[in-house]
This record gives sequence, structure tokens and C-alpha cells, in this order.
Amino acid sequence: MQNIEIDPQTISITWTLLCTALVLLMQPGFTCLESGLVRNKNNINVALKNVADFCISGVCFWLIGYGLMYGASANGYFGTSQFALDSFDDPSVLAYFLFQMMFCGTAATILSGAVAERMRFSGYIICSFLTATVLFPVVGHWIWHGKHFEQFPLGWLLELGFIDYAGATVVHSVGGWIALIALIIVGPRLGRFTREGEPKEMFCQNLPLSALGTFLLFIGWFGFNGGSVSSPSTELARVFSNTALSACAGGVSALLLSWNLHSMQGIRYVLNGLLAGLVAISASADLVNLPSAIVIGAISGCISVLLADLLEKLNIDDVVSAVPVHLGGGIWGTISVALFVPLEKLQLNTHTEQLIVQLTGVFACAVWVCSIGFGFLWLVNQIHPLRVSAQTETIGLNFGEHGMKDELIDLMEQFDKIANSESSLKHLNVEHGSNNASLCMTYNYLLDHTSKHFKAREDELLRLASLDPLTGIANRRVYEQVMAETFELAQKQKTSFCLLVIDVDNFKQYNDHYGHQLGDYCLQNVCQALSSKLRVKKGLLARIGGEEFAIILPNTSQKTATSIAQDIRAAVRALEIPHSGGKDEFVTVSIGGATWASDQEVNPQQLFDDADMALFRAKAAGRNQVIFAGEE
Amino acid sequence: MQNIEIDPQTISITWTLLCTALVLLMQPGFTCLESGLVRNKNNINVALKNVADFCISGVCFWLIGYGLMYGASANGYFGTSQFALDSFDDPSVLAYFLFQMMFCGTAATILSGAVAERMRFSGYIICSFLTATVLFPVVGHWIWHGKHFEQFPLGWLLELGFIDYAGATVVHSVGGWIALIALIIVGPRLGRFTREGEPKEMFCQNLPLSALGTFLLFIGWFGFNGGSVSSPSTELARVFSNTALSACAGGVSALLLSWNLHSMQGIRYVLNGLLAGLVAISASADLVNLPSAIVIGAISGCISVLLADLLEKLNIDDVVSAVPVHLGGGIWGTISVALFVPLEKLQLNTHTEQLIVQLTGVFACAVWVCSIGFGFLWLVNQIHPLRVSAQTETIGLNFGEHGMKDELIDLMEQFDKIANSESSLKHLNVEHGSNNASLCMTYNYLLDHTSKHFKAREDELLRLASLDPLTGIANRRVYEQVMAETFELAQKQKTSFCLLVIDVDNFKQYNDHYGHQLGDYCLQNVCQALSSKLRVKKGLLARIGGEEFAIILPNTSQKTATSIAQDIRAAVRALEIPHSGGKDEFVTVSIGGATWASDQEVNPQQLFDDADMALFRAKAAGRNQVIFAGEE
Amino acid sequence: MQNIEIDPQTISITWTLLCTALVLLMQPGFTCLESGLVRNKNNINVALKNVADFCISGVCFWLIGYGLMYGASANGYFGTSQFALDSFDDPSVLAYFLFQMMFCGTAATILSGAVAERMRFSGYIICSFLTATVLFPVVGHWIWHGKHFEQFPLGWLLELGFIDYAGATVVHSVGGWIALIALIIVGPRLGRFTREGEPKEMFCQNLPLSALGTFLLFIGWFGFNGGSVSSPSTELARVFSNTALSACAGGVSALLLSWNLHSMQGIRYVLNGLLAGLVAISASADLVNLPSAIVIGAISGCISVLLADLLEKLNIDDVVSAVPVHLGGGIWGTISVALFVPLEKLQLNTHTEQLIVQLTGVFACAVWVCSIGFGFLWLVNQIHPLRVSAQTETIGLNFGEHGMKDELIDLMEQFDKIANSESSLKHLNVEHGSNNASLCMTYNYLLDHTSKHFKAREDELLRLASLDPLTGIANRRVYEQVMAETFELAQKQKTSFCLLVIDVDNFKQYNDHYGHQLGDYCLQNVCQALSSKLRVKKGLLARIGGEEFAIILPNTSQKTATSIAQDIRAAVRALEIPHSGGKDEFVTVSIGGATWASDQEVNPQQLFDDADMALFRAKAAGRNQVIFAGEE
Repeated sequence: MQNIEIDPQTISITWTLLCTALVLLMQPGFTCLESGLVRNKNNINVALKNVADFCISGVCFWLIGYGLMYGASANGYFGTSQFALDSFDDPSVLAYFLFQMMFCGTAATILSGAVAERMRFSGYIICSFLTATVLFPVVGHWIWHGKHFEQFPLGWLLELGFIDYAGATVVHSVGGWIALIALIIVGPRLGRFTREGEPKEMFCQNLPLSALGTFLLFIGWFGFNGGSVSSPSTELARVFSNTALSACAGGVSALLLSWNLHSMQGIRYVLNGLLAGLVAISASADLVNLPSAIVIGAISGCISVLLADLLEKLNIDDVVSAVPVHLGGGIWGTISVALFVPLEKLQLNTHTEQLIVQLTGVFACAVWVCSIGFGFLWLVNQIHPLRVSAQTETIGLNFGEHGMKDELIDLMEQFDKIANSESSLKHLNVEHGSNNASLCMTYNYLLDHTSKHFKAREDELLRLASLDPLTGIANRRVYEQVMAETFELAQKQKTSFCLLVIDVDNFKQYNDHYGHQLGDYCLQNVCQALSSKLRVKKGLLARIGGEEFAIILPNTSQKTATSIAQDIRAAVRALEIPHSGGKDEFVTVSIGGATWASDQEVNPQQLFDDADMALFRAKAAGRNQVIFAGEE
Repeated sequence: MQNIEIDPQTISITWTLLCTALVLLMQPGFTCLESGLVRNKNNINVALKNVADFCISGVCFWLIGYGLMYGASANGYFGTSQFALDSFDDPSVLAYFLFQMMFCGTAATILSGAVAERMRFSGYIICSFLTATVLFPVVGHWIWHGKHFEQFPLGWLLELGFIDYAGATVVHSVGGWIALIALIIVGPRLGRFTREGEPKEMFCQNLPLSALGTFLLFIGWFGFNGGSVSSPSTELARVFSNTALSACAGGVSALLLSWNLHSMQGIRYVLNGLLAGLVAISASADLVNLPSAIVIGAISGCISVLLADLLEKLNIDDVVSAVPVHLGGGIWGTISVALFVPLEKLQLNTHTEQLIVQLTGVFACAVWVCSIGFGFLWLVNQIHPLRVSAQTETIGLNFGEHGMKDELIDLMEQFDKIANSESSLKHLNVEHGSNNASLCMTYNYLLDHTSKHFKAREDELLRLASLDPLTGIANRRVYEQVMAETFELAQKQKTSFCLLVIDVDNFKQYNDHYGHQLGDYCLQNVCQALSSKLRVKKGLLARIGGEEFAIILPNTSQKTATSIAQDIRAAVRALEIPHSGGKDEFVTVSIGGATWASDQEVNPQQLFDDADMALFRAKAAGRNQVIFAGEE
Repeated sequence: MQNIEIDPQTISITWTLLCTALVLLMQPGFTCLESGLVRNKNNINVALKNVADFCISGVCFWLIGYGLMYGASANGYFGTSQFALDSFDDPSVLAYFLFQMMFCGTAATILSGAVAERMRFSGYIICSFLTATVLFPVVGHWIWHGKHFEQFPLGWLLELGFIDYAGATVVHSVGGWIALIALIIVGPRLGRFTREGEPKEMFCQNLPLSALGTFLLFIGWFGFNGGSVSSPSTELARVFSNTALSACAGGVSALLLSWNLHSMQGIRYVLNGLLAGLVAISASADLVNLPSAIVIGAISGCISVLLADLLEKLNIDDVVSAVPVHLGGGIWGTISVALFVPLEKLQLNTHTEQLIVQLTGVFACAVWVCSIGFGFLWLVNQIHPLRVSAQTETIGLNFGEHGMKDELIDLMEQFDKIANSESSLKHLNVEHGSNNASLCMTYNYLLDHTSKHFKAREDELLRLASLDPLTGIANRRVYEQVMAETFELAQKQKTSFCLLVIDVDNFKQYNDHYGHQLGDYCLQNVCQALSSKLRVKKGLLARIGGEEFAIILPNTSQKTATSIAQDIRAAVRALEIPHSGGKDEFVTVSIGGATWASDQEVNPQQLFDDADMALFRAKAAGRNQVIFAGEE
């Protein structure tokens, strides 16, 4: 076991570093809080902003910020030394630098949530840079220079007696003001307010993540406020319990107030209220008693709710309520010092004097951050717009800025491809495990099955549209279509097929004699007889004229066709048509046939003519006959 | 550098506060664990419950709970002073209060996951209030009053020699019992069990978040168990390593047992097992050796698996397995003290005596929490039902309780709107970046493209249904429709159009002479000749009767129409109809025309009559003629 | 208040345990980082792997690993005692064991992200076991045995003067090498590279979770590097600030480099860069100054970017960039010791000598891990394939390995069920709150409403296909269908219905005399007259032949039917058909009726015959008459 040296400096440094680790929890806290409150299309962008701003502000604070904040003071206005510290320097300074770097990162990141969903990544980086390099360090110098280490002259506000224990003004108001400035410059999200200024709710998409973030911030705050005591002391018990109960009170008051104002929908304000309680108590966590801390927190919770409503009315679109929480809570916390801290613990002789100094600090901070911030951002905005294009905003910054395709983008590309192809009914790719998989599969299913379903009914319709109304069999149009198909197929396959043309004998006389009704009835019966004989053999029966029918027999030899024709003839002869009465008068048909063979150069029309001629001969030969073309 | 005073009290306070910060990690731990295990429609509700219960229980514990727990004891049953502490009080008390407040928040929040997805927000708040104000503090008084600070009389269970190092009974059993009571009162989720009592799996929707929560709880437990040593000592090494390895052993045993019982599906029980190991070791983390800790953890892991199965069999629907983990692990941990702690470290002389006392404590806790809890919740349930309505449960508590519209709700509203509008085929709004964007886009696409697709096929069907079967051209119905349209358009645009009525000359004789077949053939040829002449000029050719055709020529002057009619006449004359044989007999047509001009008051029927009359004159003039109405 | 003893050992132990708690944050850190970077279908699997591997490696390290690492050394190659520690052992050893157990868990878990989405759960457990039991402890023995506690002989690399402050080689290179080996053995994910080796982006699905994980790792690293100082000292300030700024520098350099290389898409490399900065500084956090730390971090950030690109080119598919970050950063960090640490702080006399030793260590670690790792994994892979089946990989490991049905699986099952049922158009279950709810609802809506829509248009088509072209009323086919339906219904309901058969008197003569046109016109007018009389009474009017119509009157008595028939007859008589000129010649109809009553055994055909016979009698009786069958 190595020797251990334990001395006050070591204890102080260790404590500061442990608190530093706790404060770092605020970074994932902000990341979760903000990612959960934005719409999914921008959550990657806001998360990456949080990571990037911390890295950049860390390096900047090391290079410039810390020197401006804690370097040798120029009349209490800004520091002028200790830029780019070396780690072999005084370890106390180093530990304190690291702790302040976390504060700096916090101040710089407050902005990110407020202007989420429409501020450019590059523009945001510029804002972070400004905050970390100039805005936060200078205010920090005014208020904290000379407080932790004995350095003279003191920061001018500290000299005046201004009290800000752990950054209600230095960190949160600074962050809040720059957020407000940026909000005004970049304007609200598209669609957040109607033209008449009516707000439209934009639903956050992962509130549990925000709840996680809120708790992480809460824990981080113990580091924030605890580490502001330079070395462990019994005083810490007060700091910690004030912090925790102010947070709880803020949560409860925001919950109750917003429940009243916005019914159950307001319950999510509990997150803001809790955070506002933490911000406010940062100013005086070591100075007030527990009941005061609870009141400060409770009032801060209410302020955060009311201020959020006010911003909405002013059509300022603060996505994560950064301004109500950090600026509202920060100003209130700073002022509350003068109201709640017992007189003996104040820097000045009366509460009123202290109040004036506190207000001076609030005002100075406002003027400084707003003037520099507005001037700088306005200038930048002229050269390099801080806001993304409307198109990028609509499609989301995840894709628009980072090319992170989500499923929507993928789907849009697929639809575009399909739209450019010939068929509009193509399957989508089902990428198992992607968020679109269910959707794509359903699309494909719907396409297939409704197509199948409608196809079936369409076929039925087509069939109906192609039937002869009287007999219910195919009409002449179908005959011609099927003949063309049969012909083509037979040509290709070099097979033969037969055509029968059938005429009801003496139908005209029959019709005239018995009337249309019986004529029709007769035709229907004949038709039934014809089709009954076709059942064995697949073939098309069509009515091609008044009393004239045709049968196409694909893949059929003349012999088979003749036999079918004879069957048909006999079947019709066997019919006993009503009203033919006692007379020996029967309905008969004459049939002319023709065979198409692949070695003949005969077209469908000629084939029909051949069959028709054969029919003519059948009629001439006494009717009720079957004759094929080429037969005697 | 300020002076640093370091004394034992400071060290103790600092340690307690650091552990407090660690224990606070259990709150985001529970939030993540529970949010990940519920269905998405309720995740906001359960997250907000976790935040709200902590705020409320914090304030309540400060106001009442701490006094009941650590105030001057009324015979070891409850405390009677120290309500609403002030932070200028003894800092040791304050630090300890804060540490216990975290315990209280933990006990209060155990319930939230168990009854998730169906318990009302307001009802839940009442339960939290009850636990934080009465149930937890009184049990805490019995077991811990006098242990940390020297206060007499001791809590009655402590007096008996009951051992509960860090809350296996005080925190976890209390939380577990109240969860069980609430589970019985509110009943299982809709659809969780069939009528026959068969369980139906309800899939959690964000297990990675639950894994995160489990680890955060693990880390928080170091604070839980570590902070229960009032000041840093070498003993901590045992506490920490027992805690960590009991957790690991619980995880491994649950993994192996559930892998055996439920195959790979059981692997997620590893989370429960790890937590059960932590709960069980809380009773004796400072008293057992590492192998014992591992055995305690391993058994606790198995208990959590078996108890979860048992609850399912009993149709008790514990969403996050709060009862198996906290009640099962808590009781087992309390009992295991008597079994595994070396005799010299026990409070009593034999393992058996200790076991009896431990069981007494378990029993007393059960009776207290169940009787008060059941009575109170039953009463509340009568007045203000603890459970949301079936409708709210079905639609989800995110919307039902907090009005947080998710995409489903938005979609339902859109469909409702469409259903109430005239057309059922309207586009949905595509909100880029919302979870529904893909769906809405696909819906729109499907609507457009299937509509287009089916429209095309429908048009084809319509065309087929409107064609004359013999000639394949439009039938009379189409003629009348097109005529009406043409007429209307011409009236509107003040243009003129022509109508030709065409009759095949002597068709009746031709038909009678050559038979139907040739008659039909003749008509088809004529029809082809007619349509061939129309190709240049868009117009409608229809068969309006046996051998009668009509042609509508929109936007056509009489001069052009006459020329077209002459072309047609000549084209028919030029036909060589088969079977007309060697005779000089040709098929011809007569054509009557009529022109509609916008300055005439002629309706379609009159126009037809005019054309028909002209046709009559053309026939009378020797056939094969074209005559227009008004012409000589 | 109890007495507090504070001694150096206590301070050291407490510090180590606090750092242990911080290091444990790395486990949720890895869980979040990896769960966020894989596709959703595998996120549960990777999260459970992280939990399970920690439990298993914890138990294994306790049982075997710690003994191999810190037990009595066998010539500096491995330890031989201290297996299965007891917690009543030396608390310093116990605390140190626990701290190292966290390191072991970290080394074991590095693999999980690299081979995510295709490695079997069981195979992964085997890898964790190997790393925790053998690979990590032996390398740890070489480098750290004798450094913390005075134990001889020293590890052989430590003896040589090898410097690895907090595990750049011991933890990260070991983890990185085994990840690389496993990557080569299991191969890339399906679809990650085309056959030509072109990479295909696979989008991570929850980057904010990864950002959270990155920050948690960052915080954990304070424990990692801070705890490697055995007891608090002012040195910690350097360790912490070097750690933090190396991370920031790594983030910034990776951001800038990848922004240049991959434009804005590269911005997410900031996460890798930050982590690589942390890995690299682990080797020398206590030895270098701040500017060096920043340079080391910045170079490490660049290495992580370039190495990730290189791996992609080599078609090695490292899902979370574990190899670039941990192996790349680890090797670079180990080497950078020789380059950046001031000479007086080195173990050897010159930078070159130190470089040679550092390279020896890197090489030894590579040989050890790769040879044992490759041999073992290759062997295991032969017996029990490390990779899941292609099917499991495609469907996702959440379901394939753990049976965690997601919505896609549920949907697939529903579609399968529907496909196996008769109708393909069935509703899907809408489970409110599930991710599929919107989809299922939309599917159902689309089904209903497009069905309804297309049904309406289909009905229209059907109607058109069933209308007589000339008159626009139903044709004979419809007549027969309606007759059959009416008949069936009447039979069932035992009601009666009537049939009217209507013939236009002398139509043949009229037609011949006035021509087809007027004939058609006449029929249309008659038809209109007929239908006008049917409006009151629902009935079907059909044209069943040339000039013959039929009317079916369901639920109608003969008396009512007779009255309707008389109305019709009169209405036709009242028509003034054009061209009938001045002559007193009117178009009239004869009507035959027949009534079907349920007590008669008459089929539709017979009913028609009866009506037809009545019509015949009506004509015979002078036309323009109504006669019902059975009437005189």
C-alpha cells in the first residue's frame, strides 16, 4: 500500500472534482430532456448539438474563457491572464477550472433546446462559441472573480455585494438571455403559430426520455450547488436539502398551477417546475432556510408555467421552455436572495439595498448578453443564415443536416422510383427490423390482395358485359376475341382446331308462327342443349347472330369435332319444345364445320366462310345435318 | 484559498450527501425501467407519475414523514416531533433527513410500475401520499429509530433485535405490499388475461430503456447501501462488494432459471433477477461474507422468477414485476439475515431466535401496510375510482389522462373528418417527421395510384359494356350520352357540331337474300369503312339500330361534315363484300346530315329528326347519297 | 452520533468505491450507446447482452479472474491465488477487487456492440466468459501486478517499464482485439456490403440514446481514470482535466475531420472521437500536461475516423466502431506515452527506449489475445456456431433469439391467418397503443372505404352492363335473375307476386311502315311510359325481346297489379308518337298478367307461360287490353 497524504487542499480538490463529475451529468440530462421534447425528425440533430457544443465550449473555455473569467482582473470587468492552462499548474486552479468548464458547457447548451428544430448546426456552433468564449466568462468575472480564490480587484458586481451562489445569473440567466435573443432572430418553427398567431401544439415524441433528463439534471445540480462550496463542510447539508426541496416544491407548484390552468394536459409542466426550482435556488442555496427554499422553489415553478404561457402568447417558440426555466428561474432566484436571505447573511445592510444590487446585476447581465448577443447574431445571420431552409426544416434536420435517412426518406425514394417506372403497382422492399417494415409489408399485402379481389370482380363484370342477354352465353365480340387467340395459339403450337357454325332450322317461320316469346324460349333451350354437350370438351359457345351460334373447339381433330357436332344435333332433335303441341314438328339445327390445320394458310375469316358454306350445304341437304368443309 | 475545516461530522455529512446524490439515480432508474416495460400509449403517464410522486413525497416526507419516523418516539411505535425541519437545524440531522427522503421516494415509487397502464394519475398521487406520509415512516420508526442517532426508546422491532441494514423491509417490502394491495384493488389490465384466466403476453416496447434503468438502479444502490454506513469506513468495501456480487448472482441465477423455464424468451428476467439480488442483500450487506452474498442474491433471483410466474397464474397483473422483485426479494432478504449472518454479528443468541424476530418484522410490516393500505385504498376507490375508464385504458393514458395526442389519435381524428365529409377518398396530411408521416404518405400514394389503376381498368370495362357486340362500336346508349355532352358543350362554347345518320341501303333484302351471316358480315365491313374515315377527325360512331349508324362530329362545320360524309359514302361503295359474287351489286349507304349551330333553338332529338328526315330524302333520291337538312 | 474513525486506508477505500460506482455508469453507457446504434429489431438483444455479460463477468472475475490477475505471480505471467475472495478479507483488497471487476466488465462488453445484430446470445456469453476469465486478467497481470499493492515478482511488462495508467492496453486494446477477432470470424451483417464489397449504410435508429450513452461513458471515465489514483491527491486535478479535455479535443477533431471527409453526415463521428480521446488518455492521464492531453485526444479522434473508414473498406462490419475507438485509441494512447510524457516521468531513460517497451506491450497483448481468442472462438464456432441463422438475422434477434414479438411479427401472423382464411379482405386487430395501431386502423379504413367506393362504381358498371342499349332499362338477363330472386323470396316469405308481360301492338307493321328509326323511337317512348307508372310501386321493368317487355311486381296482389297494368295501358295509349301524323293511329300495348301465390306449385317458367298465354288472349281480344291468367 502506498503512502497516503491527506491535506485540506487534497480534500478540496477531490470534492470539487467529484462535483465536476456530477455536474457533467447535466450534459446527458440536457441531451435527454431536449431530444425527448423535439419531434423525431430532429432528435439526432439536437443530440449531436449537445455533444458537439460541449466539446467545443470545453476547448474554447480552456483556451480563452477561463482567462477572461478568472485571469488578473482589468478593473473588475474581465480577466487578462491564465489562458490555455497547463495541467502542471496549481492543482487547485486546475480543479476549479474544470468545475467552471462544466458550468460553461451548461450555459452554452441552454440555447440548444430553445431553438431546436430550425437552427443550423453551424449557426448553433457559432452561438456556443460566443457564449463559452465571451458572454459567460465576462459575467462570471463580474460576479465570481475573487470569491473563490483571493484575487483583487474583485469583479465589479461582487464588489457591490451582488450575491449569486451557484450561477442563477452567471449560468442560467446568461444562457436564458442568449436563448431569447436567438429565438427572436430565428423566429418560430414553421406551423407553430397560425397567421393569426394562434398556437398549434407540436407534440414532443419521447417524454420519458425528458423525464430521465430532468432527473439527471437534478442529480447534476447537487454537483452544481454542492461544488460551489469549495470544500466539504457541514454547510453542505443545508445546500443539498435546500436544493432538493426547492426542486420538489417547484415541481409540485407547477403541477398544481398547470393542472388548474390546462387541466391534465398541463401535468408535463411538472418537469419545467422542478427545473425552475433548481435554477432559482442556485442563487441562495447556502443562505436560506428550508421553508424559504420551498417557497422560492414553489414561486419559481409558477413563474415557469406563467412565462411559458406568456411566450406562447407573444408567438415566441421556445421548444423546451428554456427561457421560462432558466431566465425566469434565474432572475427570480437572483431577486429572491434579497427577499429570503436572513439579514445577517446578506452582503449589504438592508434587504432593500441588497435588492437594488441584485437588480443591478440582473440588469447588467441583460444589457451585456443582449447587446453583444444580438449584435453578433444579427451580423452572423446576415452573412450565414442561422436558420435552415424551409425545406430542410420540413423534412427534418436529421436528414436535412446530417443525411441520416429515416424511414420516411427511404419510403419517399422508393415511391419516386416506382412513380418513374412503368407500373404503379410495384412492391416495396420490406427491410425487416426497420420502422417501415410493417408499413411496407401491409402495402404489399393490400396491393396483392385487393388487386386479386378486384380482379376477380372485374372478371365477373367483364364476363357479364360479354354475354348475350337472351341466352347468357358469349356474344359475337367474345367469339371474335377467342377465335383470334385460338388461332394465334394454334399457329404457335402447330395444333389444329375446329369451328362449328350452327343454325336453327326454319327459325324464321317458327318465330313468325309462335311469336317472339316462344322464339326466344326456343333459342334458350337450343342454347342449353348446345352447352350441355360442350361440358366434356372445353370449347367456346357463342351466339353470333339471331338464330346462329358458333363453337370453337381448340386442340380438336375433325373426327372428334364431328362426333361432338352429331351429339349436339341429336340433343337438339330430342328437345321437346313446349307449344309445339301434338304436331310432329321438332326444332332441329344444321351444323357446318371447318378444321384449321397448321399446314393450311387459312385465316379466321376464311375458316368461318368455309364453315358457313358447309352449313349452307347442310341446310341444302335437308337440314338437321352435320357437314364439314371438304367433306362430301 | 479559504481555510478548510475537516472534522468527523463533516466527513459523515459529506458521505451521506454523496450517497444521497447516488440514491437519487434510482428515480431516473425507476422511470426508465417502467417506461420501457409499458406499452407506448402509457409511457408518458408512467414517466410523469415518477416525477410527480418524487416531488410530492419529498414535500410530504419533509412536512410529516420524517417526524413520524425519527421524531421523539411514542413507545417505539411512531415519532412525534421534528416535523417540517429547518435547514439551520443540526446539519447531521438535515443530511440524514435528505438521505431518508430519497428512501421514501423510492418506497413511494415502487407502486407506479406495478399498476401502470390503468391507475388514475390522481389515484396514484393519493397512494404516493399515503406511503410517504404514513406507511413508510411508521415502519421505518419501528426498525431504524435509534439506530443512527442515539434516541430512546428504540423502535419496537429494533428493540427486539430485528435486523434490516438498508431497507429490505422498510423500503422494499413496504413498497411491495402497497403495490400488491393496489394490484388487487385495481385488477389486471384489460386483455391481460382471457376469461379462462389464460395470460396474454403484452409486449413491452422499449427494453433498452429498461436495461438502462436497471443499471441506474444498480448504481443508486451503492448509495442506498453505502450511505447506510453513517460515515466512511473500511466496512464499505464489504458493503459495496456484497451489493455488487449479490446483484450479479441474482442476474445469473434468474438468467439460468428462466432460460430453463421459458427458453430464450426468459432472458429478460435477468433484469428482475439483478434487482432482486440488490433488494435481498440490502438487509445484510454489512454483515455477510461474499459467498453468502452471492448465495443470497442467487436465491433471490430465482424467487423473482418463480414469484412472477405465480402472480401470473393468480391473474395478478404486475406490469414491471414490482412485487416479485421488491416484496419477494425484500422478505427473502429479511429472512436470509437469520440464515447467513455469522452468529457473532446477530443481535440475538441463536439463528433461530433471530429468525423468529425477522419473521415477526416481516409479519408486522405485512399487517400494518396491508390493513391500512387496503382500508384506505378501498375507501378512496369507493369515492374516487382508482382505475381509469375502460375507454381511457384502451386509448392509452398518455392521451386519456394528459391529452398528449399521439399519432394514432391524430389519425383517428383525420379519419373521422374524412368520414363526415362527402368523399371518402381524401388525402391525409403528411406531417414530416411525425411517426405517421410514412403511413400517411403511403395511404395517399395507394389512394392515388390504385385509384388511377382501377380507374383505367374501369374505363375499359365501361367501354366494353357500352360497345355493340356485333360491330364493336358504341351502342345507342353511348350515342345518347355523347350527344348530350356534345350539345351541352356546344351550347356553352357557342360552337357548332354535325350529326350524320347513316343507313345501309336495301339491307333488309340483302339480309333476307344472303342470310344473317352475310348480313352481319356486311354490317361489320360497313362499320369498319365508316370508322376508318373518322380517324382524322375525332367523332363518335355509334350503331343506333339494326342497319342504322350515327356519327357525331363536334366542332365541325357543315362543309367539313359533308366532305366526311361523302368520303364515307365513297368508301362503302368501294367495298367488295364477299359473296356478292360476280353481279354488279354493291353495298351502299345513304347519309342524312344535320348541323347544330348555337343560334338555333334545336334540341338533340330535333336534330336527330332533322338528320333522319334528310336521310329519308337521300333514300328517296335514289340511295347512295348524302343530304343535309336544309339542303336541297 | 457514532464515533467516526478516519484513517488513510478508509480514505483510499472510500475513494476507490466512489470511483467504482462512477465506473459502473459505463455499463448503462455502453448499453445506451449500442442500443442506439443498432437497428430496432436487435436493440433488446444488445441491451440484454450488456446486462447479462456484466453479471456473468462479475461472477467469473470473482471466481477466477481476480486470482489470475492479482494472485501470487508465476514469474510475472499470471496469478495463482486469491480466487473467490471473501468479504471479510482485507478491505483494501476487496475494494480494489471491485474496482477491477468494473474494468473487467468493461473489457468484456466492448465486444457486444461490434458484433451486434448477428452474434448468438449463447456465443456472446462464451466470449464474455473468455475475456473475463482469461484474456483480460492475464494482460492485467503483466502490466499492473505489483503496481497498486506491493507484490513481487512484478508483471513482466511492468518490470520492463511499460506504462499503462488506466487500461488503454489492459482494458481497451484487449476488448478491441477480441472484438476484431470475433468480427472476422462471424463476418459482416447480411446486406452490409454488396457482392462487390460496396458498403451499404445501415441506419442506426436511436442516436439520442447513443449520445446519452456517450456522456455516461464520459462520466464513468472520471471513475476509471480517477480511481486509478489509489487515494485522493492533488494529482487528481491533472487526471480529471486531462481526461475531460482529451475527450473534448477528440470530439472536436473527429467532428472537423469527418465533416471534411463526409460532409455533414460525418457529424455523428463526434461521439466516436470523444470516446477515442478518452481511451487514448487513459494510458497517461496522470503523466502529461494539458496541451499534450489535448493533442493526444485530437489525434485519437482522427484515428477513430480514419480507422472506421478503413474497416469499411476492408468489409469488416463493426456496428458501433468498437475497434476504431477502443483498439485504435488504445494502441495510440499506449504509444503516445512514449511521445508526450516528460522524460523525468518515464520509466526508462529515453523516449526511444520507452517507445520500444510500449510497442512490446502492444505487440504482446495483440499476440496473446489474438492467438487465444482466435483459437478458442474458431473452435467454438465449429461446435456451436457463433452466428445466428440468416433467417434469425433477417427477422431480428429480438424475436429470433428472445421471442420478443414486435409489431411486425404480430402483423405477419395476422396476414398469414387472413391468407389462410377464405376472405382476403378481413380487418386487422387494432391494438390501441401498439406501434401498429395506426397502420392497422388505416388498413381497415382503406379496406372499408375503397371497398365501398369501388363497390359503388362496380354496381354502376354492373348496371350499365345489364341495361338494354336501346331503352336503358334492364335486359332479359336481369329479368331472369330478378325473377329467380323474387320467386325464392316469395316462396320463403309465403307472399304473392305478379308478372306482367307487355307487347306493343302491331309493332311489326309500324316498324316496317315508318322505318327502324321511328320504331326505335316508339319503343323508347313506350318504355318511358311504362317506367313512369312503376315509380310508385317498386318493381322491375325489363325488355325481354324486340317489342316485348316484362314487369315483375313483388309483394303485389292481382288487384293492385291489374290496376297498375291498366294505368300503363292508358299511359301508352295517351302517348302521341311523332310522325304518326294526323291519322288517328295510336301506339297501344296488350298486357298479359299472372299472379304467383305461395299455395300454387308453379315455377317461374310456367308463370311466364301463363302470362304469355293471357297476353295472347288480350291480343286476340282486340289488343290494348289487360288480361290476367285465370280471368275470363
